Amino acid sequence: MEILRAASRVFRRRGLGAAGMREIAEEADVSPGILYYYFSGKDEILLFCQERTLEHMLAAVEAARALPASSAERLRGVLQAHVHAMLDELEGATAHLEVEALPEELRAPVMEKRDRYERAVRALVAEGIKRGEFARADAALVTRAMLGAVNWSARWYRPDGPQTSAAIAQALSDYLVKGLLK
Amino acid sequence: MEILRAASRVFRRRGLGAAGMREIAEEADVSPGILYYYFSGKDEILLFCQERTLEHMLAAVEAARALPASSAERLRGVLQAHVHAMLDELEGATAHLEVEALPEELRAPVMEKRDRYERAVRALVAEGIKRGEFARADAALVTRAMLGAVNWSARWYRPDGPQTSAAIAQALSDYLVKGLLK
Repeated sequence: MEILRAASRVFRRRGLGAAGMREIAEEADVSPGILYYYFSGKDEILLFCQERTLEHMLAAVEAARALPASSAERLRGVLQAHVHAMLDELEGATAHLEVEALPEELRAPVMEKRDRYERAVRALVAEGIKRGEFARADAALVTRAMLGAVNWSARWYRPDGPQTSAAIAQALSDYLVKGLLK
Repeated sequence: MEILRAASRVFRRRGLGAAGMREIAEEADVSPGILYYYFSGKDEILLFCQERTLEHMLAAVEAARALPASSAERLRGVLQAHVHAMLDELEGATAHLEVEALPEELRAPVMEKRDRYERAVRALVAEGIKRGEFARADAALVTRAMLGAVNWSARWYRPDGPQTSAAIAQALSDYLVKGLLK
């Protein structure tokens, strides 16, 4: 949705605190009236951005599970989709996974999706261990390490930097899955 | 320094925004006058906390370099020290590596140390590749992945959780270095 992309660009450029509804409306090329018709304020826009990002990532896990593939291939696919969801889909706004940026009363649905996503990735890791494809490991801890590594990319990625997000997604997922293999 | 530890506990408990000098003074068991004698305000305390954490981590790299050890052992040692610096030394305040939490005019010394630390870790990765101990890899990207994974631990670690910080440090460093090996 174009309004969410525009809002992400403004959040990224100005920071969450300084971003305003007027500037988001301008960036999205809609009137402030239209923007307020859809969203009560910028917190609600951020909530939609975060939920959308997490829905992308949950869909990627579903898609990976449906593939007749090794656990390594599935996990690489999920991690690559995760990197893309953060760096491309919504203009790489670093705030998307930072639930603390939301007012407390809006956090519950994001935390629920985030926890569901983490459990789904952990299940892929556990599946690989059970199949004997991955070495024995603490699936919960390794999952958090992987998610930390990919989430952190939103902090250092620059759209005008030397590497494409696709190259970053591939290299990160290769490295992170390699540490699981026997 | 006890005041910095006390401040970290307050930052963690209350959040940066809500933490106040009076509460930090109480936690450190000193008078507000003493606290203001040493620090102009909570931003300056946060600056000292961040610098201290980074100095610990830089010292760990120096110590690792001085060891007659494999690149894998050196890197494991650095990553373990990094986890401890974040989770134990300063009570695991998540804000320590978030330079954005500082007012802009205080950021330069932290960013300089942070960049120096990242370069030093990257040099350890490059050394391992050059020695033929690690597989060929993009040392800059892999370094960022490793640092992201360990930095993220400050977000999910709970001092009263089931795992000690030592167990977490060991498991994380084992996993992250394994992905580099040939």
